[in-house]
Amino acid sequence: MKQESKIPYKIYLEESEMPTSWYNMRADMKNKPAPLLNPGTLKPMTFEELTGVFCDDLVRQELDDTTAYIEIPEEIRNFYKMYRPSPLVRAYCLEEKLQTPAKIYYKFEGNNTSGSHKLNSAIAQAYYAKKQGLKGVTTETGAGQWGTALAMACAYLGLDCKVYMVKVSYEQKPFRREVMRTYGASVVPSPSMDTEVGRKILAEHPGTTGSLGCAISEAVEVATTNEGYRYVLGSVLNQVLLHQSVIGLESKIAMDKYGIKPDIIIGCAGGGSNLGGLISPFMGEKLRGENDYRIIAVEPASCPSFTRGKFAYDFCDTGMICPLAKMYTLGSGFIPSPNHAGGLRFHGMSSILSQLYHDGLMEATSVEQTSVFEAAEQFARVEGILPAPESAHAIRVAIDEALKCKETGEEKTILFGLTGTGYFDLVAYEKFHNGEMSDYIPTDADLQKGFDGIPKFPGNEF
Amino acid sequence: MKQESKIPYKIYLEESEMPTSWYNMRADMKNKPAPLLNPGTLKPMTFEELTGVFCDDLVRQELDDTTAYIEIPEEIRNFYKMYRPSPLVRAYCLEEKLQTPAKIYYKFEGNNTSGSHKLNSAIAQAYYAKKQGLKGVTTETGAGQWGTALAMACAYLGLDCKVYMVKVSYEQKPFRREVMRTYGASVVPSPSMDTEVGRKILAEHPGTTGSLGCAISEAVEVATTNEGYRYVLGSVLNQVLLHQSVIGLESKIAMDKYGIKPDIIIGCAGGGSNLGGLISPFMGEKLRGENDYRIIAVEPASCPSFTRGKFAYDFCDTGMICPLAKMYTLGSGFIPSPNHAGGLRFHGMSSILSQLYHDGLMEATSVEQTSVFEAAEQFARVEGILPAPESAHAIRVAIDEALKCKETGEEKTILFGLTGTGYFDLVAYEKFHNGEMSDYIPTDADLQKGFDGIPKFPGNEF
Repeated sequence: MKQESKIPYKIYLEESEMPTSWYNMRADMKNKPAPLLNPGTLKPMTFEELTGVFCDDLVRQELDDTTAYIEIPEEIRNFYKMYRPSPLVRAYCLEEKLQTPAKIYYKFEGNNTSGSHKLNSAIAQAYYAKKQGLKGVTTETGAGQWGTALAMACAYLGLDCKVYMVKVSYEQKPFRREVMRTYGASVVPSPSMDTEVGRKILAEHPGTTGSLGCAISEAVEVATTNEGYRYVLGSVLNQVLLHQSVIGLESKIAMDKYGIKPDIIIGCAGGGSNLGGLISPFMGEKLRGENDYRIIAVEPASCPSFTRGKFAYDFCDTGMICPLAKMYTLGSGFIPSPNHAGGLRFHGMSSILSQLYHDGLMEATSVEQTSVFEAAEQFARVEGILPAPESAHAIRVAIDEALKCKETGEEKTILFGLTGTGYFDLVAYEKFHNGEMSDYIPTDADLQKGFDGIPKFPGNEF
Repeated sequence: MKQESKIPYKIYLEESEMPTSWYNMRADMKNKPAPLLNPGTLKPMTFEELTGVFCDDLVRQELDDTTAYIEIPEEIRNFYKMYRPSPLVRAYCLEEKLQTPAKIYYKFEGNNTSGSHKLNSAIAQAYYAKKQGLKGVTTETGAGQWGTALAMACAYLGLDCKVYMVKVSYEQKPFRREVMRTYGASVVPSPSMDTEVGRKILAEHPGTTGSLGCAISEAVEVATTNEGYRYVLGSVLNQVLLHQSVIGLESKIAMDKYGIKPDIIIGCAGGGSNLGGLISPFMGEKLRGENDYRIIAVEPASCPSFTRGKFAYDFCDTGMICPLAKMYTLGSGFIPSPNHAGGLRFHGMSSILSQLYHDGLMEATSVEQTSVFEAAEQFARVEGILPAPESAHAIRVAIDEALKCKETGEEKTILFGLTGTGYFDLVAYEKFHNGEMSDYIPTDADLQKGFDGIPKFPGNEF
């Protein structure tokens, strides 16, 4: 196996090289992402309105679109040191297997018990809740990565943690549930009888197995009706992309250290937290006209918010109790087909990324899941790491781009985000091995049903 | 949280600092471990006899008790770079939680898809099989860590891999099986109808759920009766401890770099691979009279080979087709109680460690599993990592020793081996959370049944 002597397989920064501030892409965006709107008044949500849902410091971060660098509090930096820096890996073995002249790097965020990058924002959100003297936080989780991450962060800080877990995942992923319990979280299958919105949904759809949008509604209701609680969210929000910028900042520091400049940056996109974090310092250079990069968001063909969604104000939750966000959306009633495995199933997309995509600063592509699992297995066999299905979306496109380089002979440098591990996704791997996995592309008629649910009001034409 | 400024949370060696040779403790032992015996002739197994089972280079390593340092081939060193160096972590958070003056370090081997240290020997054994031009290897696996590690190594080298998996684990741990399939291994529940020994056991015990000893017998039979195959084993053997010395060597290099000397070294012990690897360079210094360390093997109270076993020649497998090894043993018919969770269920113990223990160079202690899971959960909540039940045996004793330091005020330095992660052990965690976990200590009468099966011959008094 070839190894360029100066480039280690895995680049680990020293503790002293780790970022001390998060980077806020919005500061460098000419077209700022649109503000959250109050669904009643259709006016921008104020600080006071938002602090009923989120804790104060996080609302400040949510609303701040001018400060480029926000210091990472020391306690969070200390927590980061428990599992960061994450390695930037040169995929020498994959390159050799593909016989490509491309140089492939991946930033691996799976070396922590939550199994993904989600911990980067979970600890930040839990920290600010603790700082504000709150008793606890509520959230929703689908596949369970975010819930696990939040449970870990809360256990560390001694905060109460209530997780509304989409019922189908609660039942099909008991192990994720047990990890959360190990960290002392209370995990409730959603929809539940605990909340008004849960009871309403159960009355209307008695046999429902739940959805992320519904679990969000329940978690928000519990946070806003219980003293000393606030709601936290693992993706989509501006604050989450801010915290996740640590992924991109570490990647950039490591690449700069070895004189590496990526030509193409690839990340999977569900709500956008990993992609937004990975690309942030690179996009910053692009926004400031200092450097150019090709940036590709990869989403599942079964949940194609970027590639087939509408750019409009929409609800983030099924219960329609959350603020409206301007984003690429499939409609808050959209639920991916049951054969869709893994995460990346949210109907919308981060407002920041939506604006960047709308402005032509990044590309998006969608891939079908069988080809995603083929890439996952190929990657696992040569690089050793069993990827999460979400992460494997980025692997699929990284491999495709590397194979294009093989055809053209171009020595492009590719960076992709390997967001996590697939230890809790083996039911999906089993289906793949047994040839029982199917692909699904929603028809235009399927999508229209979702679009019909997007609120209509002046200025929200789509 | 306190942090000594000069000691990082996680010490990662540079690639250039990684060991280039394995260390062979036997070279420094005055009392060498007893040789393997041919069960028919009761004479030491010769090179020629052993090469029918194992590949040639590995037999050389198995028999070599004089060469202190054996070079790690470059291809293995390259593979090691994919997931090594493993971090040596200072458990600042655990220390703070315990309010102990002790300084606790752990060497974490779980950051690879096999989830444990087993990969260190798997790649070595697969490499030598490939080098010899073999088609493939066979092995057994219980909890599945070793089988997964071997499947990963074989996928990397393009070798065929047949894994006999203890039937109860095959059925209860389908996810482990799927990971192995992802890496292209064929996984067979044992006992199976594939082998003579399997058919015999099934005829005698139709409802059996299998045992490690039985799966070993099947894997050995397949290796010795199929052209181009050899058998490989994940623990117990001298060669395995040799390969696992990379754990201890990295630990020692990292500790020396920061001027740290452990007072106590703790590892869990099933067959002895992790413990033997972790302690090796430290034991070397102890054997050569250069330094002294307190070394503690931790085993489950339900499978107490060191603390309650006999030091005698015994079979390594149930089918009694393998060579006899001199070791602390509970008898090859011993099977831990069904309530025993996780690994550490082998009836015997590495000959090297058995000799060292017999000579008073190390201690052993046994712990009950409920207290092991309590330690696991406490550790997970503060250090973030969800430990494998096996590893948690070492955590239990590390915490106990740290609490003793709290009482006495001694600032001892403790090093323990955190062999792996518990992502595939959540059924056991669930039992623990639900209060359904029980402890079991075999009675003297239970143990006597196992001892009765140890072969009797002159020189094998116990």
